[in-house]
Amino acid sequence: MEKIILTGDRPTGRLHVGHYVGSLKRRVELQNSGEYDKIYIMIADAQALTDNADNPEKVRQNIIEVALDYLSCGLDPEKSVLFIQSQVPALTELSFYYMNLVTVSRLQRNPTVKAEIQMRNFETSIPVGFFTYPISQASDITAFKATTVPVGEDQLPMIEQTREIVRKFNSVYDEVLVEPEALIPESEVCCRLPGTDGKAKMSKSLNNCIYLSDTAEEVQKKIMGMFTDPNHLKVSDPGCVEGNAVFTYLDAFCRDDHFEKFWPEYANLDALKDHYRRGGLGDVKVKRFLNNIMQEELEPIRGRRKELEQHIPEIYEILRKGSMEAAKVAAQTLEEVKRAMKINYFEDAQLIAEQAKRFAEK
Amino acid sequence: MEKIILTGDRPTGRLHVGHYVGSLKRRVELQNSGEYDKIYIMIADAQALTDNADNPEKVRQNIIEVALDYLSCGLDPEKSVLFIQSQVPALTELSFYYMNLVTVSRLQRNPTVKAEIQMRNFETSIPVGFFTYPISQASDITAFKATTVPVGEDQLPMIEQTREIVRKFNSVYDEVLVEPEALIPESEVCCRLPGTDGKAKMSKSLNNCIYLSDTAEEVQKKIMGMFTDPNHLKVSDPGCVEGNAVFTYLDAFCRDDHFEKFWPEYANLDALKDHYRRGGLGDVKVKRFLNNIMQEELEPIRGRRKELEQHIPEIYEILRKGSMEAAKVAAQTLEEVKRAMKINYFEDAQLIAEQAKRFAEK
Repeated sequence: MEKIILTGDRPTGRLHVGHYVGSLKRRVELQNSGEYDKIYIMIADAQALTDNADNPEKVRQNIIEVALDYLSCGLDPEKSVLFIQSQVPALTELSFYYMNLVTVSRLQRNPTVKAEIQMRNFETSIPVGFFTYPISQASDITAFKATTVPVGEDQLPMIEQTREIVRKFNSVYDEVLVEPEALIPESEVCCRLPGTDGKAKMSKSLNNCIYLSDTAEEVQKKIMGMFTDPNHLKVSDPGCVEGNAVFTYLDAFCRDDHFEKFWPEYANLDALKDHYRRGGLGDVKVKRFLNNIMQEELEPIRGRRKELEQHIPEIYEILRKGSMEAAKVAAQTLEEVKRAMKINYFEDAQLIAEQAKRFAEK
Repeated sequence: MEKIILTGDRPTGRLHVGHYVGSLKRRVELQNSGEYDKIYIMIADAQALTDNADNPEKVRQNIIEVALDYLSCGLDPEKSVLFIQSQVPALTELSFYYMNLVTVSRLQRNPTVKAEIQMRNFETSIPVGFFTYPISQASDITAFKATTVPVGEDQLPMIEQTREIVRKFNSVYDEVLVEPEALIPESEVCCRLPGTDGKAKMSKSLNNCIYLSDTAEEVQKKIMGMFTDPNHLKVSDPGCVEGNAVFTYLDAFCRDDHFEKFWPEYANLDALKDHYRRGGLGDVKVKRFLNNIMQEELEPIRGRRKELEQHIPEIYEILRKGSMEAAKVAAQTLEEVKRAMKINYFEDAQLIAEQAKRFAEK
C-alpha cells in the first residue's frame, strides 16, 4: 500500500515558530525523507470559515501568508501537493454522506471539540459547521486515502473519529476507505511552544508570537522581552528553567553545536541549565544565546520569503495547480464512495436492466 | 422576479393517495397553471439516506417507483425538471457553507426535527446528517432560487429555517440568495389523509396505505376494509362522520357531480353525511360509493403507470437529463455564493493583484 500524508493549517494568520517547531519543520523532513509516495498539504480555508463565517476577508488574506510560510520553510510543490480546501468540491460531498454515519452524541463526546468550544467561548451558540468539523476532517483525510496524519497528542481524538467513520463506511457499504494512523512527534517539547510571555497558547491578540516572517529586529526584540523565571531577580539568585519560556525555546531549538559556535563556555544545554539553576547566570546572556540560535534558524526562511514575496501570482498558480491535482484525486475517491453506496444510478447499467426486468415480469 | 417552485419527496416507498391528495395533485395543477417560470421536482435520495444510511438499496429501488408515480400523475418533464438530489453535487457544497450560519441550539429548537426525531425513536443516537437536514433543505431550495415551496403546515419551521439562512447569508456576504415563501394548501383536509385503519399516519409497515400503483382489486379490497365508526354497529344506528376514515376520504375525493353519476339519491356530501348521522345508512354502501370515486380518479393514473413501466430506461434518461439541468442551475448559484464569500480565489484577479501590490510595497 502507498504511504500517503495529509496535513495542513487553518489560514487565520501568519505562521509562527510554534507552528514551525510543532509541525512545519517535521513536515519538511518527512517530505524530504523519500519515505512517502504522496504528500498533501492543505490550506484549510473552509475549516477556518466554520468559526470565521462573518470574516471571510481574514481567511482570504491569510491564504497567501500561509503559502509563503510553507514555501519559505522548504515545502516543495515538486514533492508535495499544496492545495486550498475550498477548491476541492468532493470534500463537502464526502462530508455530507459521512454525516449519516456519526451520531450527534458521538460528536458531543469528542474531547478536542469540547476543548475548542470552551476556548472559543461558543457554549450554546456553536455554529453547526464548527460542531461537525471532525467529520469534515475525516473527508479531508480519506479523500486522499491518507495513511499517515502528523498531529499533536491533542488531535488524537480527531484521528480516532476518522478511523471510526472509515470502519463504519467500509462495513456498511464496501472496502473503499483507508484507515489512517496518527504520527505523533517523538519529543513532547516539539508539540507545543509557549508564547513569549510564558502563556501556553500563542495568539495574535496576545502579541506573544514570533512569526516566521518577523524581521531580525522584531525577533530580537521579542526574545529580549521574553518571560523567564519571575523569582530570578538578581543575577546571583538561583533560577528555575521549568516554565521558563527562554529555556523551553532552547529545548526546542538548541543543539550541542550551537554552544561551540555561539557560547563555548558551556558544553551543552544541560551544563547551561545547571549554571542557571545554581545562580550567577543572568537572563540577558541566555536570551542573547537564544537569539543567535533562532536568527540562524530563521534567517534562511526569511530570505526565501523575501524572494517569494516578489512572485505572488506564481504562488497562486502553484496553489491552483495543487488544488486541481487534489480535486482530481478527491473526485476519484468520491466516485468510488458513490459506487460503493450504489448512488451512481446513471452509470449503473445493471440497476437499469434489473428494474426494467422487474417491471416487465410483473 | 421569476416565480420558481422547488418541491419533492424522499424515495423510501411507492407514493400513496395521501401523497396524491396532500401534494402531488396540486403540484400537477401548479405545473399546468402556467403561473410558474420554473418547477423543480426533486427525488430526495440523499435526504432519505440520512436515516437510511445502512439501507441504500431501499432508497435506490424506490427512485424509479417515485418517478413512475410522478409521471403517472401528470408531472411532465417538458414542463417540470425532475431530478435526483444526489446527482447535484453543488447542493452539498452549499450545505457545508450554510452550516456555519446556523447554531447547534437553533437546530435543536426546530419543532419539525424534534417531532421527526421522536417519531423515529432516535433520541440519543440521531445521525448528524438527519439532525442537520433542515440546512440541507435550505440548500435544495436556495440552489434553484425557489420563490415558492408547496408544503403542509407541519413543514413551516423548515421554510423558516431556510429564510433565516438566506437573510444571514445575504447580510454577511452579499445579496445572492432568494427568500422563499411557503405555499400552504387552502383546505386542511388536503393536508393529511389518515390510513385505511383510521390511524393518522400512513405507513408501509402498518399496511394501511392505498398506493397509486395498487390494482383496482387491491384498492377495492382496502376501501371495503376501511375503518369507519366503531359504534355504528347496526345500519339503523346513528353514525359519526368525524374520525371516520371513509368520510375523510370522501372529503378529499368527492365532488357533487360524483353523486349524479354514482349515487343520485343524494344531492351532495352534506346530504349523505346527514343521513349517516341520523342512522339507517350502512357502511358498505358508503364504501362502494367511495370505491367508485377513487377508481375513477386512480384508473387513468394506473393506466399511464402500466404503460410507463414498459419504458424504464427512458425514465432513467428523463431523470438523468433533469439532474443535469438541475446540476447546471445549482452550480451557477454555487458560483455566485462562492464569489459573494470571496472564496473564488483563482478567478479573483483583483485579489491576486492586491496581494502582489501589498508585498511589493512592504
